[in-house]
Amino acid sequence: MEKFFKDFPKIIYEGPRSKNPLSFKYYNPEEVILGKAMKDHLRFAVAFWHTIRNEGTDPFGLPVMDRPWMKYSDVMDQSFAKIDAVFEFCEKLGVEYFTFHDRDIAPEGEKPRKSNEILDKVVDHIKEHMKSSNVKLLWGTANLTAHPRYAQGAATSPDANVFAYAAAQVKKAMEVTKKLGGLGYVFWGGREGYETLLNTDMELELNNYARFLKMASEYAKKIGFKGILMIEPKPKEPTKHQYDFDSAHVLGFLKIHGLWDDFKLNIEANHATLAGHTFSHELRFARIHGKLASIDANQGDLLLGWDTDQFPINIYETSLAMYEVLKSGGLDCGLNFDAKVRRSSYDLEDLFYAHIAAMDAFAVGLKVAARLLEDGVLEEFLRERYSSYSNGVGKDIVEGRIDFEGLEKYVLDKPSNFKPNSGKQEYLERVINDYLLSVE
Amino acid sequence: MEKFFKDFPKIIYEGPRSKNPLSFKYYNPEEVILGKAMKDHLRFAVAFWHTIRNEGTDPFGLPVMDRPWMKYSDVMDQSFAKIDAVFEFCEKLGVEYFTFHDRDIAPEGEKPRKSNEILDKVVDHIKEHMKSSNVKLLWGTANLTAHPRYAQGAATSPDANVFAYAAAQVKKAMEVTKKLGGLGYVFWGGREGYETLLNTDMELELNNYARFLKMASEYAKKIGFKGILMIEPKPKEPTKHQYDFDSAHVLGFLKIHGLWDDFKLNIEANHATLAGHTFSHELRFARIHGKLASIDANQGDLLLGWDTDQFPINIYETSLAMYEVLKSGGLDCGLNFDAKVRRSSYDLEDLFYAHIAAMDAFAVGLKVAARLLEDGVLEEFLRERYSSYSNGVGKDIVEGRIDFEGLEKYVLDKPSNFKPNSGKQEYLERVINDYLLSVE
Amino acid sequence: MEKFFKDFPKIIYEGPRSKNPLSFKYYNPEEVILGKAMKDHLRFAVAFWHTIRNEGTDPFGLPVMDRPWMKYSDVMDQSFAKIDAVFEFCEKLGVEYFTFHDRDIAPEGEKPRKSNEILDKVVDHIKEHMKSSNVKLLWGTANLTAHPRYAQGAATSPDANVFAYAAAQVKKAMEVTKKLGGLGYVFWGGREGYETLLNTDMELELNNYARFLKMASEYAKKIGFKGILMIEPKPKEPTKHQYDFDSAHVLGFLKIHGLWDDFKLNIEANHATLAGHTFSHELRFARIHGKLASIDANQGDLLLGWDTDQFPINIYETSLAMYEVLKSGGLDCGLNFDAKVRRSSYDLEDLFYAHIAAMDAFAVGLKVAARLLEDGVLEEFLRERYSSYSNGVGKDIVEGRIDFEGLEKYVLDKPSNFKPNSGKQEYLERVINDYLLSVE
Amino acid sequence: MEKFFKDFPKIIYEGPRSKNPLSFKYYNPEEVILGKAMKDHLRFAVAFWHTIRNEGTDPFGLPVMDRPWMKYSDVMDQSFAKIDAVFEFCEKLGVEYFTFHDRDIAPEGEKPRKSNEILDKVVDHIKEHMKSSNVKLLWGTANLTAHPRYAQGAATSPDANVFAYAAAQVKKAMEVTKKLGGLGYVFWGGREGYETLLNTDMELELNNYARFLKMASEYAKKIGFKGILMIEPKPKEPTKHQYDFDSAHVLGFLKIHGLWDDFKLNIEANHATLAGHTFSHELRFARIHGKLASIDANQGDLLLGWDTDQFPINIYETSLAMYEVLKSGGLDCGLNFDAKVRRSSYDLEDLFYAHIAAMDAFAVGLKVAARLLEDGVLEEFLRERYSSYSNGVGKDIVEGRIDFEGLEKYVLDKPSNFKPNSGKQEYLERVINDYLLSVE
Repeated sequence: MEKFFKDFPKIIYEGPRSKNPLSFKYYNPEEVILGKAMKDHLRFAVAFWHTIRNEGTDPFGLPVMDRPWMKYSDVMDQSFAKIDAVFEFCEKLGVEYFTFHDRDIAPEGEKPRKSNEILDKVVDHIKEHMKSSNVKLLWGTANLTAHPRYAQGAATSPDANVFAYAAAQVKKAMEVTKKLGGLGYVFWGGREGYETLLNTDMELELNNYARFLKMASEYAKKIGFKGILMIEPKPKEPTKHQYDFDSAHVLGFLKIHGLWDDFKLNIEANHATLAGHTFSHELRFARIHGKLASIDANQGDLLLGWDTDQFPINIYETSLAMYEVLKSGGLDCGLNFDAKVRRSSYDLEDLFYAHIAAMDAFAVGLKVAARLLEDGVLEEFLRERYSSYSNGVGKDIVEGRIDFEGLEKYVLDKPSNFKPNSGKQEYLERVINDYLLSVE
Repeated sequence: MEKFFKDFPKIIYEGPRSKNPLSFKYYNPEEVILGKAMKDHLRFAVAFWHTIRNEGTDPFGLPVMDRPWMKYSDVMDQSFAKIDAVFEFCEKLGVEYFTFHDRDIAPEGEKPRKSNEILDKVVDHIKEHMKSSNVKLLWGTANLTAHPRYAQGAATSPDANVFAYAAAQVKKAMEVTKKLGGLGYVFWGGREGYETLLNTDMELELNNYARFLKMASEYAKKIGFKGILMIEPKPKEPTKHQYDFDSAHVLGFLKIHGLWDDFKLNIEANHATLAGHTFSHELRFARIHGKLASIDANQGDLLLGWDTDQFPINIYETSLAMYEVLKSGGLDCGLNFDAKVRRSSYDLEDLFYAHIAAMDAFAVGLKVAARLLEDGVLEEFLRERYSSYSNGVGKDIVEGRIDFEGLEKYVLDKPSNFKPNSGKQEYLERVINDYLLSVE
Repeated sequence: MEKFFKDFPKIIYEGPRSKNPLSFKYYNPEEVILGKAMKDHLRFAVAFWHTIRNEGTDPFGLPVMDRPWMKYSDVMDQSFAKIDAVFEFCEKLGVEYFTFHDRDIAPEGEKPRKSNEILDKVVDHIKEHMKSSNVKLLWGTANLTAHPRYAQGAATSPDANVFAYAAAQVKKAMEVTKKLGGLGYVFWGGREGYETLLNTDMELELNNYARFLKMASEYAKKIGFKGILMIEPKPKEPTKHQYDFDSAHVLGFLKIHGLWDDFKLNIEANHATLAGHTFSHELRFARIHGKLASIDANQGDLLLGWDTDQFPINIYETSLAMYEVLKSGGLDCGLNFDAKVRRSSYDLEDLFYAHIAAMDAFAVGLKVAARLLEDGVLEEFLRERYSSYSNGVGKDIVEGRIDFEGLEKYVLDKPSNFKPNSGKQEYLERVINDYLLSVE
Repeated sequence: MEKFFKDFPKIIYEGPRSKNPLSFKYYNPEEVILGKAMKDHLRFAVAFWHTIRNEGTDPFGLPVMDRPWMKYSDVMDQSFAKIDAVFEFCEKLGVEYFTFHDRDIAPEGEKPRKSNEILDKVVDHIKEHMKSSNVKLLWGTANLTAHPRYAQGAATSPDANVFAYAAAQVKKAMEVTKKLGGLGYVFWGGREGYETLLNTDMELELNNYARFLKMASEYAKKIGFKGILMIEPKPKEPTKHQYDFDSAHVLGFLKIHGLWDDFKLNIEANHATLAGHTFSHELRFARIHGKLASIDANQGDLLLGWDTDQFPINIYETSLAMYEVLKSGGLDCGLNFDAKVRRSSYDLEDLFYAHIAAMDAFAVGLKVAARLLEDGVLEEFLRERYSSYSNGVGKDIVEGRIDFEGLEKYVLDKPSNFKPNSGKQEYLERVINDYLLSVE
């Protein structure tokens, strides 16, 4: 078996003062934070499509990355080599999980039956690797976006045949995910939406999408898949409008269509900002509805209008994200690096630099968030800010003991000029800076 | 009673060939389209805040419009004059409805009790006008955004006292709306949201918001208000994030909090685009969920990131909007011109030009939409495009008679290469052009 | 020679009442408008890369369009077939121009010398077609964006070797354009910019870019190329920041670097909006600086943050664009459809529908613009609006006869409260509607 | 003289471990960095309009901040009180500069002559303060945006009288700035642009703008004003399109109109992002053209489409900004906090928290930037990355010794497959994190 990363050392923690760029300065996997090892808080995953398969194409550019595992001319050899590569890379990096979609790991055959057979062979190869490795599957998914049959949607295609192809593909991908012990299964509806309303029956499409998800959930139960089923919101790209626009769209849809108990959310940072929200907002919204299951850890460029899927290196973002994760009691799955090295970062070593930068950034985020929580600094502020709801008329409101008439009576002769206490935003923003700057 | 528009004629329909800029070329109120008079399809309303009260301030500019009705130094005289002005303007323009919020028409007193007394006097003045005019109230609302007490939210304020003030104000506004025969009552939560998550208990705020809306709905029932209760989505501005982000956020919220049957939606064009959607999208989404009750008719500038509230003059937009309205079987309320003349259009005659331009644009839109529907051109296209769901496996899907296993069986040996029929977007876009260009 | 469009008729003008979707309703090539035939006003061009080579890939999707001319396994056969296709398509459509870049028409060889030889063969094939066809070259260009060597820029690459490759490629492309009688040559700097300032020497890159353009201009003179050299602004995509951000960036750059007389602009609608401007703005800015040479005719989706390159079907846009073109006294080159059918419009007939829709939309735009000019409706408004600069203090200002002291003296005792006449925006917007709706 | 901040201590440096929120943790004014005291590197200024005059209105909200200096009913008393307040606040905060516009400090009279007289009285009051304080004027400006006469532009108004009013106002403001020893004078053209092209003679307006600026520059010379004349770019808001869109627009305009030597730039962070650029980009672009004179230090919210003018607290932004400042050899003027506390931060203490947070953030930024430069970490990377331009063909390119023909010869037989070294973006991003996290 070819070794693709033999020139690289195993990446280890060396602390902030290390001068070795191929070491962690903050990510110390076994270090215990709030009673749990860092690696268990974070459960990082390498994303197959970006780290292994991405060759640096863009809408105006040809492949630019010469990955050694892509050089095999035989398609099965190449599939096996890619699997070898992901395991080797995870091990070198000290990452214990990966994620993939069906077409990442195996080519499609002439018929779905044939595609499944090919897939099985590659899955066996993965199983083989797993025996001798502690690298595991975070979650799996099916690619319902690339093939021409999905050009107009999969579960929301105008053509019922396409719905059937998609169903068969998801069925198989769920089986495979179960077989590989995945902690979850993700639905990303990149083509579930429309290009123009002029040719779209939105009502039928939304109903069909609900039918599809219900069938998926039922099949998961039937085969005894214990992982979490997740929907990953994204507002647009590739499609002009995607039905899973953001977490509120998805949760509303689940509720309206009777699917609430069947699905949770996989939140991606860059998808959040494309929808006009901060990453924190989407995490918070999912969390307070009990629906935060996993994270696609990346970052976008807010001055660009497409999904740049950059490695998450901004420590403000990682800190506020980990704050939500800790408040949520941890994730069902983990942090998947749905991130790609920039097109100009085409060396193998850039894969290491990028993952290390992101892992350190999340380690910093975890440390900051843990200290914020231990000190209770934000919690105490909130307790005070909302304290009027703990007694008197506020308590009556919260406990449903007062109505409009009662409330009118309460204020009718109070002065109109009234103002709550200052919201102190800048004070709080500085607190965050102070916590960031004192990380060790 | 002073006449403010005495230099202007009553605006009448003169047809497309008229050279008179103070006439309608397309809006012919009594003309019957699809069995209903134009004016009943469209039910235009003048918005008090923009057309009567707006003096052309902006974040960098002082008032620039010298409205004669604003010149009264006595505050009650000014209130009465404003009422006189809106009735006179509507009559001159041939618009039969207006909309207002409580602070539009009357100033606030030192205590809520006093504010209510002042409001009552102005409402009586309105009632007086209504006796001799056929101008009516489309819908009313309460201003829960301007006063400092609402700086941090109204129903979602961190301070329970503010919740109470807001409740009392909405209670009164609903009573007044009922008294004036309003067809609906609108909730626009311009401050219901947050500036920073650092100081926000989103879960409590959302729950409080639901409590507030429930109390409102119960009070409406209690007083026998028969109008439609509506929520108007807007994603941001003035607040960084508003909970009523878009129609999907609102409908999801209603469903999650058990408020589904109590509210419908008032959709604004410019709010749609601020949320990243087309106006049509928001109308369609509301319509297919049975929730399209009224429209705030304006248009935004998609290259600007704030609510420009321009008069709706783009005939593509008005045509696609009226298509959704007709498909919805009409509106519970109507088309409110939540639009302001540009700051440099400060003459009284600009108020006429702007409203005439918009009314003609919607008349064109109505005619285009009606002909599209009569010809069934889009319907037929959809019927064909989604025909596979009317029989065979598609029918099984829609009727719930097949599952993942059945669907897999269905496709397992079909060729992987499959593609639905072309979506023909450009063909359909040209059809729209052809309908626009043949309006008469 | 294979005929790819043999199932399609020659597209001809049949007038607005025609029911034939494969006919023009407004584009009547020989119809004379303001003394010139429509086809000479518009000089439409088919873009090779979109119409012939685009197979419908997107960042998440595989090729979806099965173009018969792409099926040849031999790479030269395919090149020749693509040339055959573009000529046949233009003839069927009645379009007299096409545009291309070097890598559109011919594959790259192992060395630049070899690439040039391959290119020459294909150019000979084009020349052959031209003998028997009235289809001509609007402009040519070189692809300096796709190949990995340009991943970090071409003229602005950090590597001087890349600068040299780019120079050689442009040199050849200019020679080929001259040989084929192109009316112009376009520079689109899709990779001339940066991904991150952290690794960028912006000053050196801008200077190198100027050096490159100077060499190009000198070489054009040397070989006697009489066509217009044009720069095509675009703010971003594929690169995070592109130096040719918009027309003002480019013109400023040309002035600062002494290149003003050497280049004009090719303005694209979708690039304008990506830069935060209207299409009209960019055309106007280019026009008043005497720099409007050609147009990439398409339209974007302002709710999407990437270059959608849709066919230009919006008649507001085409009318205002043609207004600028007529005011400019026509274009040096013409209107190139840098537009692609939507990914779901994958039938050959969609190519016709899309081009017909756009050609009709521009024909409408031309008619509207011509009538606006004939009636002098906007000109008269401007004359009045700015009349104060024609005499008195205004004339002194314009003619440089007054300074701050003189102006202070002039106003020192005038009332502070002063206001210019209303800008009448809504009135003018309605005028545009009236002209659109009365097109015949 | 009333003391408005008597409850607040003088803010002093107490170091990172201090628990006192009213102290600096990083800003240590006399600490020497790269041979210069921090306070001289940074030259912070308090912005009169935001910190003294802003009462927290927004497009939907009434004043919410009860500033004690605004309570005086006599308009001159209020003007004097505001001046007292700004000096007291600066002294408490340890900020040595402030900025203002003419209408900030004094109300307008019935005629320009009267306005000037009022202004003179207030300026005398400022002079008086300056005698006993070390608080100085960073720069002054004139408000050409608020008054109705400027609704359609000042120097670019369609009315020549408005041009004259603006000239008189700027003349006076320059005199006042000179009298107060301002280091510079800023032109912000918030209304120099257009709302719609339909009513705009862009060519005349741009020429008039150039005439106005030339007169200003000549007058500055005439009165011996030694400060820097600066233009502050902003793309939009309040106007739909502003001619000073961004630094490239402004510099191009200066070059085209022969004003290059007369003006430099005042760069604002939030204006940069509204134009689609990073703050760093605008600073870099200004710097490499020798035009970086001063900074409006704030930050925007990239998910909001308007100028939020938040206090600059993001340490990535402050570090990269200070890097450009240091590379530029310092600023002609300084860092003006063109920032306002959030509307809900309405307490007096919030003014302190906000300024302290920003001053500490810039102190951190200065320290990070200085260490980056001392270590030469980015410089060394660039030297290596662009090394090919230091010899061989690269040197020939830079020194103008080679043309297209020479370059073609150089590459004609080189392999087409060539790629520069990796751009290593993620590696560099991590370096920045490491420097941030090791600040002390």
